Formats: sequence, C-alpha cells, structure tokens
Amino acid sequence: MLQPQSIYIAVVGVGGVGQAFLSQLQHLESRMRKASPPLDLRLVLVRRSKQQLQSADWSGIDISNVLTLLKSITGPLPPWNEVLNHLSKAPGKVVLVDNTSDLALASTYPEALKKGISIVTPNKKAFSDDYALWAKIFEAAANGTGSPNAGYVFHESTVGAGLPVLSTLKELVETGDEVTKIEGVFSGTMSFLFNSFMPVGGGGGKFSAEVKKAKELGYTEPDPRDDLNGLDVARKLTILARLAGLKVKSPTSFPVESLIPKELESCSTGDEFMEKLPEFDNQMDELKSSAAKEGKVVRFVGSIDVPSKAVKVGLEKFDASHPIAALKGSDNIINFYTKRYGFNPLIIQGAGAGGGVTAMGVTGDLLKVISLLKQN
Amino acid sequence: MLQPQSIYIAVVGVGGVGQAFLSQLQHLESRMRKASPPLDLRLVLVRRSKQQLQSADWSGIDISNVLTLLKSITGPLPPWNEVLNHLSKAPGKVVLVDNTSDLALASTYPEALKKGISIVTPNKKAFSDDYALWAKIFEAAANGTGSPNAGYVFHESTVGAGLPVLSTLKELVETGDEVTKIEGVFSGTMSFLFNSFMPVGGGGGKFSAEVKKAKELGYTEPDPRDDLNGLDVARKLTILARLAGLKVKSPTSFPVESLIPKELESCSTGDEFMEKLPEFDNQMDELKSSAAKEGKVVRFVGSIDVPSKAVKVGLEKFDASHPIAALKGSDNIINFYTKRYGFNPLIIQGAGAGGGVTAMGVTGDLLKVISLLKQN
Repeated sequence: MLQPQSIYIAVVGVGGVGQAFLSQLQHLESRMRKASPPLDLRLVLVRRSKQQLQSADWSGIDISNVLTLLKSITGPLPPWNEVLNHLSKAPGKVVLVDNTSDLALASTYPEALKKGISIVTPNKKAFSDDYALWAKIFEAAANGTGSPNAGYVFHESTVGAGLPVLSTLKELVETGDEVTKIEGVFSGTMSFLFNSFMPVGGGGGKFSAEVKKAKELGYTEPDPRDDLNGLDVARKLTILARLAGLKVKSPTSFPVESLIPKELESCSTGDEFMEKLPEFDNQMDELKSSAAKEGKVVRFVGSIDVPSKAVKVGLEKFDASHPIAALKGSDNIINFYTKRYGFNPLIIQGAGAGGGVTAMGVTGDLLKVISLLKQN
Repeated sequence: MLQPQSIYIAVVGVGGVGQAFLSQLQHLESRMRKASPPLDLRLVLVRRSKQQLQSADWSGIDISNVLTLLKSITGPLPPWNEVLNHLSKAPGKVVLVDNTSDLALASTYPEALKKGISIVTPNKKAFSDDYALWAKIFEAAANGTGSPNAGYVFHESTVGAGLPVLSTLKELVETGDEVTKIEGVFSGTMSFLFNSFMPVGGGGGKFSAEVKKAKELGYTEPDPRDDLNGLDVARKLTILARLAGLKVKSPTSFPVESLIPKELESCSTGDEFMEKLPEFDNQMDELKSSAAKEGKVVRFVGSIDVPSKAVKVGLEKFDASHPIAALKGSDNIINFYTKRYGFNPLIIQGAGAGGGVTAMGVTGDLLKVISLLKQN
C-alpha cells in the first residue's frame, strides 16, 4: 500500500481560538487518517508569544499534548523569516494557521505564499490594514493572481467568525451578481450591548451598566474601549468592502463613530474609563428616548453602499420589525442586498464571536485548502 | 505562450434555470479567459427534451447563440450512455451541468462520475430519491469515497437555491460540530402562501384566494397541487437529513402533511382542483383563528431532529416574534441548531426560488469544481 499524502501544519497562537482550533484539528486528523484515500495531517510547528515547538524531523507533534509540551520550552524565538524558510523545506505542502492578531506576522504572508506556504487565519489585521498589504497578499496567492505553485490564503473568520459571510460575498461577486449594499451588526459585543440597552418592546438598563455587565460576562475586550471605539467593526467593513471591489485605503479612511465620549478619550486606564462612563449615561438615554418616540430602536451597525462607495460605522435607528432590531444575545447579522436577490436581502445570522465558532471558520478554510492541495 | 487549460462544459436543460445559468456561464467564461493564468471554459454540448447540439471537434459552441442554434436541430436524441461515452473522450476535464429534474439522467450520475465527468446540478431527484442512488453517487465521486480520478459532484441549489445552505451544513459536520436540529421554510411557494394568508399582525385573504394569486404570479408549479402536496419540501428535507448523517430511505419514508384536502385528491385536473378548493377554506380559517388565539401564526415548515432521527414536514404554529413567523415575500429561512452555536441558531435567509438565484448556486458549484480540476 502507498504511503498516504502528508500535509504539514504550523499553528501560531494557542489562546481561546487557537485551543479550539487544535481540538478541531485533532478531530479532523483522525477522520482524514481513516478516509479513503487516507490523508496524513501532521502538526509540525506550534508557536505562541514566548515559546515555539518544532518537529525537527517532520515526524509530527502529538496534538493532544501541545500545551504541556510548550510549557517546557525556553530560549529565544527565531524570527519569522527563519521560520518560513524552515517550513518551506518540509517534504510536502505546508499550511500556516495564524490564530493571532499580530500585524508583524501578517506582513510576512506575501513572502510565505510565494514560498508555497498556504495560510488560513482569523487575523483581521492582515486584510484590514493598509491596502498595500492586501494587494501584496493577493498578488502572491495562488487563489489571487499569484503563481499556481504559490500558497492559498483563506480568512473566513475575519468577519462573522464561523458564519459563511466572506464565502457568500465572494460567490455573489464571482457568479456575476451586483452587490449594491451590505449592512449589519458585525460585533458580538456591540450586539449584546444594544440588545440589552434597548430591547424591542422597551426596558433595558443604563448604558454604562450594560457595558459593565458585558465586561463581567467576558463579552468585551479586557479594556472595553477596544470595542467601543468602533475600530473592530471598521476592520471588518474594510475587508467586506474590498471583497466587494472597493479599494478602501484603511479602517480609518471612512467615518467611524466611537462610543467613547470625547471627555473620556484622555483616560489613562480602562478602569478610570469605566468609573467615569456613568456620567455620560444621560447622552445615551436621550438617544434612546428620541428613537423610541419614532417607534425605533438604536443599534451599532456598519454599512457599505457599493455604487456610491460609502462605507460607515456607527449608531443607526431601526424599526422594531427590522431583522437588525430583532437580533438576540450577542448574534451578528449580515444583510447582502444584490441585484439578483432583489428587495429582500440574503441574510446570514448567528454567533459571530467565541473560540469554537471562530475556530470552525479556520478549520473550514483548512478543509478548503486541503481539498485544493490534495490534487497536486 | 502556453495554451490555456480547457475545461469542457455540457449543459442539459435550457428552461428558466438553464437560461439564467447560460448567461452566468457567458460572464464567467469571459472573466476566466482574461484571468492570470487564463482558463478556457468551453461549451461543447447543449441538450433539452427534444434537441441536442454538440461540438463534434470540441472547438466549442457560441454561448450567446445557443437557443437559436438549438431550434434548427431535428432528429432522434442519442441515449445517455452514448452521450457520457462521447463526453469522456473530451481532450480535458468535463463538467456536466444538469438543469433538469429528470430522474433518468440523475440515475446515470454514478456512471458519469466514474468516467471522470464532474456534475453540478439543482436536480433534487438525484439526491432525494431512493437512498441507494445517493449511496452510489457518493461512492463514485472524488469528493465522496470514489477514486481521486473520478468526477466531483456538487448540488448546492437542490435546497434553498443559491443560498449557502448545503455548504454550511457540510462545514458544520466536517469541522466536528454536532447538528441537533434543522428547521425552516424550504419552499418559496409555501412561504408566499402563508406570509399572505396569515401575516404577523393580522389580515390576509382566504386560503384558496391566496393559492389563486400565487398561481397567477407564477409562484406555483403549473399545477399548484405539486406544491401543496409537500413533496418538494420533503425532497429537500431528505437531502439535508442525509448530509446530517441520517440514512433517510426516501422522501415518503417520514410524515409529510399534504395541503390537498382528502376530498380533492381524486380531482383529475389542476383546474378542477382550483375550482373546488374554496369549499375547504373554512378548515384553513379554523386553523388560523386557533393559532391567533394563542398569539401565533401558522407556517408550513420542515424539521429534522437529528438525535431522535425524526424528520417531518407540515403545518406548525410559531410565536409572532419567531424569525420563521417574520419571514417576508417568498423567502426561505433555514435554522441550524448546533452544539457549537448554542441556544441561538445559525440562520440563513433569502430568496430560495427563481432562475437567477438557482443558477447562481449552480455557477457557484461550477467555480468550486473548476478550482479543484485546475490543479490536475
């Protein structure tokens, strides 16, 4: 019997998403080993901020034991170019799974792709920073305009976590539909905050109290200002707009409404900010009552008007019957308005944050890459 | 310069979906010809019920002129096995696009796949008839357990037209999530009928009048009984249940509620049925008022409870605030409840019928096949 084909996997980042990914990889590895024909998925490198574990002879690392093994490692980390050079010498195809939000690593993607290393990642920075990096990545990738021998790149989880948002937008564009508008709630944190602050039918607490609750539940970043400044949503909108064909320069090149009051921009810590936020509850209450008078609710949304190239992020009012108003918990909702779909949009909705569902988008991308690499 | 790789396309069926597909194929062909590296998509065979047009020297047929060219063809149609034998001799990879609902053609898929011919299709019969045919298809396909040299098969448009329903379900399963329940409105016709008959907030006409209106708007089959018997929805549920891992024998092997009154089952024509349907409006009115008393609305849904293997199709009551109740027009909605997604389902919603969106699912599948075939 022939040896099964091996695909070599390198994983960077073993936080919430990284650990969920490793567990899904273990499931996948076992399934593919028993498939017909079998495929050998081999974990050959794992790295986190201060440690790197490497299978020197390409024989593979025991996935179930990665975290324990990592703990025993000490010593300096090799620079990325050295890591990529090493990976490019693997005796088969290599996929780099980047579960970080590191721009330095993202900046090496073009180089990695040119070396034939494929990339799957939920790292938004790579695709939402300066347009030049986006262009370089897709000029290098085999599924861009790069060489057929280059690596593939997929990043479904950069928007809506495991929800099929980017694959759907790509298919609309590639099959020749005309996307006119994309609108939705793209942040689980913002979704939870506004669904609690102003639920359809009335009720809801003070805004600062909802932020406090969200922080306690672990729904915000450690410093809630990193959610409230709108930049996370702006990065997702940048990615969607670029896939829809707009050359958006950066996530700060269009209007983004921050929910951090001007007076609190100078707070030196997140704690100081949280302490002072209640002083501004009256502003949010005014907004709430003015919307209620119109029979509407307030939500934090992003929208892209494709023909006019207008991208924006901020607060908007919606009728109580609108699908965006009816959202629950920390769900995301994405509405695609297109020529083919007509008046009613194509809607995708569900959890848009969390380790398991974000890792699912990464594992789904890995499956796509594997099916493409298997052919060679 | 090297000749670009050619992929040979055969199209069967040039009705509403088939014509929309040809127009999308033309767009795709032109885009791929200019791509880097270029790819040559070549239409080499077109067939409809009484005519077949073939490019004898594989040089290709002018897509924009297909319907006119077909009209000039007379003479007997060759049998399918002859057509498949011919196609398997093409000087490159072949994709058969089946835009029919023909079970005879569907029965040849295993043979075609074994000959290396890939298949993309919205033909529900192939995947919802006897389980034996389903098993044979996926035992033959390269993306089933068949030989890597066999053809690929994709059928996204068999459920929800162009909505990413099957690809999402496959990804949930393949990445190791546990799908517990699938529930939704799977028929554009049934969606329109019940959204009109019993809209949230009250109103709506007599049931027979809504059927008549739907027929006049072209939202039903020529004989509306073909929608009202529930079989179309049962076929879609069969496909979803099988992808979720249940070996459903056939679309008549689980409970399916027909909206054709027992007394009218013997009507010999659709016209006779439509004439007599108003006599049964009181039954539907009773259902409507009993639901209204509970603050609910009635919808025609399908559901799959995976752990108990219970598949069913029929009328159900939903709270006015439920996403299934709030559906508009002739939209489909599909809710995936999974372990990973927790209490709130992953929801996909939008137009689930119509030539353009159905063809989009087919063209999307063709793109997937092309990306896989390009590698060889």
